[in-house]
Amino acid sequence: MVALTYFGIMRIFLVEAYFMSGSFGSKYKITFFGESHGEGLGVVIDGVPSGTVIDSERLRLEMRRRRPGQNEMSTNRDEADEVEFLSGVYNGYATGSPICAVVKNKNQHSNDYLAEERVARPSHSDYAAHVKYKGYEDYRGGGNFSGRTTLSFVIAGTLARMALDSDGIKIAARVLSVGGISDTPKSIVDCNGSTISNFHNMELPMASESAADEVRNLIYKCKQEGDSLGGVIECAIWGVPVGWGNPYFDSVESIISHLAFSVPSVKAVEFGDGCEMINMRGSMANDQFYRDKDGVKTSTNHNGGINGGISNGMPIVFKMYFKPVPSIAIMQNSISLSDLQERNITVKGRHDPCVVPRAVVVAESLAAIAIMELRP
Amino acid sequence: MVALTYFGIMRIFLVEAYFMSGSFGSKYKITFFGESHGEGLGVVIDGVPSGTVIDSERLRLEMRRRRPGQNEMSTNRDEADEVEFLSGVYNGYATGSPICAVVKNKNQHSNDYLAEERVARPSHSDYAAHVKYKGYEDYRGGGNFSGRTTLSFVIAGTLARMALDSDGIKIAARVLSVGGISDTPKSIVDCNGSTISNFHNMELPMASESAADEVRNLIYKCKQEGDSLGGVIECAIWGVPVGWGNPYFDSVESIISHLAFSVPSVKAVEFGDGCEMINMRGSMANDQFYRDKDGVKTSTNHNGGINGGISNGMPIVFKMYFKPVPSIAIMQNSISLSDLQERNITVKGRHDPCVVPRAVVVAESLAAIAIMELRP
Amino acid sequence: MVALTYFGIMRIFLVEAYFMSGSFGSKYKITFFGESHGEGLGVVIDGVPSGTVIDSERLRLEMRRRRPGQNEMSTNRDEADEVEFLSGVYNGYATGSPICAVVKNKNQHSNDYLAEERVARPSHSDYAAHVKYKGYEDYRGGGNFSGRTTLSFVIAGTLARMALDSDGIKIAARVLSVGGISDTPKSIVDCNGSTISNFHNMELPMASESAADEVRNLIYKCKQEGDSLGGVIECAIWGVPVGWGNPYFDSVESIISHLAFSVPSVKAVEFGDGCEMINMRGSMANDQFYRDKDGVKTSTNHNGGINGGISNGMPIVFKMYFKPVPSIAIMQNSISLSDLQERNITVKGRHDPCVVPRAVVVAESLAAIAIMELRP
Amino acid sequence: MVALTYFGIMRIFLVEAYFMSGSFGSKYKITFFGESHGEGLGVVIDGVPSGTVIDSERLRLEMRRRRPGQNEMSTNRDEADEVEFLSGVYNGYATGSPICAVVKNKNQHSNDYLAEERVARPSHSDYAAHVKYKGYEDYRGGGNFSGRTTLSFVIAGTLARMALDSDGIKIAARVLSVGGISDTPKSIVDCNGSTISNFHNMELPMASESAADEVRNLIYKCKQEGDSLGGVIECAIWGVPVGWGNPYFDSVESIISHLAFSVPSVKAVEFGDGCEMINMRGSMANDQFYRDKDGVKTSTNHNGGINGGISNGMPIVFKMYFKPVPSIAIMQNSISLSDLQERNITVKGRHDPCVVPRAVVVAESLAAIAIMELRP
Repeated sequence: MVALTYFGIMRIFLVEAYFMSGSFGSKYKITFFGESHGEGLGVVIDGVPSGTVIDSERLRLEMRRRRPGQNEMSTNRDEADEVEFLSGVYNGYATGSPICAVVKNKNQHSNDYLAEERVARPSHSDYAAHVKYKGYEDYRGGGNFSGRTTLSFVIAGTLARMALDSDGIKIAARVLSVGGISDTPKSIVDCNGSTISNFHNMELPMASESAADEVRNLIYKCKQEGDSLGGVIECAIWGVPVGWGNPYFDSVESIISHLAFSVPSVKAVEFGDGCEMINMRGSMANDQFYRDKDGVKTSTNHNGGINGGISNGMPIVFKMYFKPVPSIAIMQNSISLSDLQERNITVKGRHDPCVVPRAVVVAESLAAIAIMELRP
Repeated sequence: MVALTYFGIMRIFLVEAYFMSGSFGSKYKITFFGESHGEGLGVVIDGVPSGTVIDSERLRLEMRRRRPGQNEMSTNRDEADEVEFLSGVYNGYATGSPICAVVKNKNQHSNDYLAEERVARPSHSDYAAHVKYKGYEDYRGGGNFSGRTTLSFVIAGTLARMALDSDGIKIAARVLSVGGISDTPKSIVDCNGSTISNFHNMELPMASESAADEVRNLIYKCKQEGDSLGGVIECAIWGVPVGWGNPYFDSVESIISHLAFSVPSVKAVEFGDGCEMINMRGSMANDQFYRDKDGVKTSTNHNGGINGGISNGMPIVFKMYFKPVPSIAIMQNSISLSDLQERNITVKGRHDPCVVPRAVVVAESLAAIAIMELRP
Repeated sequence: MVALTYFGIMRIFLVEAYFMSGSFGSKYKITFFGESHGEGLGVVIDGVPSGTVIDSERLRLEMRRRRPGQNEMSTNRDEADEVEFLSGVYNGYATGSPICAVVKNKNQHSNDYLAEERVARPSHSDYAAHVKYKGYEDYRGGGNFSGRTTLSFVIAGTLARMALDSDGIKIAARVLSVGGISDTPKSIVDCNGSTISNFHNMELPMASESAADEVRNLIYKCKQEGDSLGGVIECAIWGVPVGWGNPYFDSVESIISHLAFSVPSVKAVEFGDGCEMINMRGSMANDQFYRDKDGVKTSTNHNGGINGGISNGMPIVFKMYFKPVPSIAIMQNSISLSDLQERNITVKGRHDPCVVPRAVVVAESLAAIAIMELRP
Repeated sequence: MVALTYFGIMRIFLVEAYFMSGSFGSKYKITFFGESHGEGLGVVIDGVPSGTVIDSERLRLEMRRRRPGQNEMSTNRDEADEVEFLSGVYNGYATGSPICAVVKNKNQHSNDYLAEERVARPSHSDYAAHVKYKGYEDYRGGGNFSGRTTLSFVIAGTLARMALDSDGIKIAARVLSVGGISDTPKSIVDCNGSTISNFHNMELPMASESAADEVRNLIYKCKQEGDSLGGVIECAIWGVPVGWGNPYFDSVESIISHLAFSVPSVKAVEFGDGCEMINMRGSMANDQFYRDKDGVKTSTNHNGGINGGISNGMPIVFKMYFKPVPSIAIMQNSISLSDLQERNITVKGRHDPCVVPRAVVVAESLAAIAIMELRP
């Protein structure tokens, strides 16, 4: 291993052993595993109540929402992504035991990635992972840093939603903006009900058709140029009772952001009117209480349904900011991973110019996981 | 307990038992406790290496940075905030056993808070906590939702920094903006070294004197009006080696945001150029690699020192967005906690018009805690 | 620090940093802190449901059961052990926030322990701790290895029992044997109800008065000889519903034993007829089911109320085996901690010849903590 | 679901949701999944250092030691137990990412178990699990309570041993006694080196050939009678440095016992001379220190290498007590799971009369997992 010897000399390896942290949660515990081009990926889920109906068709539909290769906005890879349950499901019900769900990998074009010399892709994990794992990482297709790991979110999240159904908790998300083009209305909770219900069936879930058209064109154009785009997803959770979450450390915000920042490319997370609230005064930003026949409510929801880390009964609203996909077909400066000397790189392979539309179901899924974890 | 009976009728209490989650971390484990007007507050810290020098004077200085009542920008409360170590420190060194640090409460003006009737303060936790804890919460001064709990961050963070000194890891933060007035330069890492070092000694740590003057005036003006302001803190961590953190679930971003969202009033967290990156293309947003005599670097740092959840050797940069302080001396609509009927409220007591300047040391502290947790 | 330099030469310190693990549990989370001769000891308890009545008198009585210096069987130290709540209790109720309970140390005779040269006490943690903590440990009175840390079990366990009262779960323990003298009947569940109730008030809780007399005499005699004794405590938990616990890893046995082996001097833990079952055949050892008006029961209880790691509705029964107290006033071979050369030692100070009677309340307490943790 | 309706009437189901706890550890995190007669069983292992050589042949040999059907002492089932790695292994090395290892189930004779009516097998988990999981459990072959789950221990433990090799830590175990017949010498550490090395290759690893013959005959005889036997396994760990473990809660004993009590049929765990020490006085039970050229040692090892929860450099020795296998071909009283009325049962299917010989490798495996978790 040339890289290792070389690194040894550079004294980069100060630390003896580097580990992963592939688990999250104590009430709804999820353990991810798998790499993009290995045998398969999946998740062990511990916390689906025994007797929960496992609806395979619903899972298949949610998985398809995340899947690439379905339209011109995304990569041409066609990943079948069939979920196989190795345990914890019997006769169509959750048994209460850990559920291991696996998606076998197919259709890998490892040759797209396996070059004679590995040059670190800028803004990818390649260099950091190479140092962390001392050169032993399975780097093919991004390994366990691949966006493909998000299918484990979808599996775990969809099962969480099956369990949450009986609580009357509903979750929906949309693309709020891509490349500067924003959806209207400003807040997802102001969309009308049928629009929200329909997001689920849309390739590009936006309320405004014209905005969606603009985004579609922009993504297509960007793809032609070999460049990439970021964007924002807005997600709302309806029906969470008052009183879930904690002041510290497991505030509703802490749990959701912990999961959201485990999704590749997410660089900011915001609750309610988060960033905008810094320009308001308290008299404008406070959500005043009133009462109607259904109980206590707030007349605005700048706080996104959370006060002091705890749900206040209003819809929980959060946004995830995605940086542009780092894989671009434009030449960049970089370094070789074998000798750490400078090289140029033009990232090959089939890549999405924008992952935001496909990540909508990921946002909904992590929201569901978070709520199962926060459920008292 | 009128409230309880009443609530019982309203069938709000669907859940049997509600608990806190007062602990964080597995390598640097912190357990918070305490309420604003109870006996005291504090933290048990498990993970300070035995032999770490516990510098009480340094701790006293950091505590003073968080303390209110020191200038016209903040409340008139004067909290002495003396830290008492009950365990884990012997002869001035950390023993390796859990360190329990306590700050006894003094100078509580409970009468400011104890009214005959409790009306929920809008955008505070009052209502949500009242439901969660079934009316048994110690609500005086915000109880364990009080901003006063952040002193536990400062204690745990300062001890973390004492341990990190030997790793050559340095942390600094500043006020980036308040009420629309922003500091320059845009990024803290572009400030010159003496400016950064000096932030530590400033009541309002900003690089631009004129911006600081404007902010000071704005806060003062806002205080006169009984209103409040939010703002942004930017924090940087220098010297973290390549390879700390994980793709999921304990990405550098996940750990920092988990802690940041446990600080009252934080509604958004951003890494690197987070929110702005959504308007860049990949070709602009990617941080390209180069090499100098010190090793591999990136020519820009849009990603804030983190790729794929892992440190890449560049400074780690994050921002915390604070909503305006919800306590304002302006009349608002709300509800009574005893009968859930509508009432007006004008929040009394001594309150900061803007907590952002005092929260700078809290940001640095949680950064240090996060890094100790991420340290392999 | 002579020891450190010396140890450095011996290359014993291979490991960079040694930490404690002072926390246990996720539903009933306890965090211990404190040393025998420091400022104080205590525990942060996270998981007492809000609204639980905190009965201080009951706590005082339980604390007294553990307290030394009350009769001729134990040391002459008189430890007042007054519990102070710093947080989480308001108006006599648990608020739902973390409860920090502290017992300040008084009456330390540090001179009994502080010798010019520290010689490792055989079968104590002195040597192992000295290496682990690199010489920085607070060794006075055993530091955080002291049996005095068990008062944190009693606090956390008594609060757990206050919470469990509403579930109808009852716990009792007795001294089953000391120095070869055994109580009758063989199983605590065969004692009559009034005897069981009375254990709580007895200094030496045994059902057989004559056995108790023998034990008392033996302990007294052993004390005169400067020697020490071990023994067995048997504890039973009545009223746990069917279905608590897990096959792995948090079986009822795993959780109870994890806690039991955190009590100083415990060297074996057994459930039901544990050790004796190895000499039975299946046909003898199996607990056959029958049904009476109260539901399903087993005609024997060799398994101690646990099948497959899960409660089966029968009383949960376990035993803790205590080795003899290692502090004896008889000369032993040992080594100096400063130069690791051989020395003799005769342990001075006030020590119990047998801690088993005082540990009965500790056994009950950890049982209560375990049940709170296992409670779904 | 008759049982459920019926149970509903009986008001047994007081608790809303029952979960598993399938994960253990924070440094060497293992997550078990799988049922005896489902698709497969396995484990996700998080904590094998990147670069660890994964020796498939060694794993295959260890798996074979646990496998049934190899001789007349055990059941006739022949389980191939081939381990498939789905992730975390690349080019024969651990990558540092979570390793998911699966063993697919074959050769299930579900008809042996699937009767028209389920009668609870005495001392099995059937009844407790049926209540816990509300009748949704996959009960075939014991489901996830099956002894077959121990293959996950062997996989995780063998990989732990591959990682521990570089630390010079060695582990061996033997059958200490079965049905009253005990091996000699009394302690495994007194066996000579070649005997210890050879245990690894023996179907019935005992030092005394005559004792082994007696045990073999006894097991055979017992099998003929349709009855079953328990026994004791003794395990030792050599080479653990001084200073691993904690006084509470993660003492060496706590971690090992937590895992040991997750192995089916284990009802007692003992360290060093555990149970026997209750009959010794301190002067006899204490392990006195001396010094030889290799450093500090103790002249006896009654404490099994652990003082105050921390390793003291001597071999760590523990024993696991197994109750007799509860599956016996002799008629017993029990209840039906459909109506909870009394029934008789004679357990059919292929069962081991004694699992102790096959569990030797399980003991070694959990010891290795514990040491990886305790490793600082």
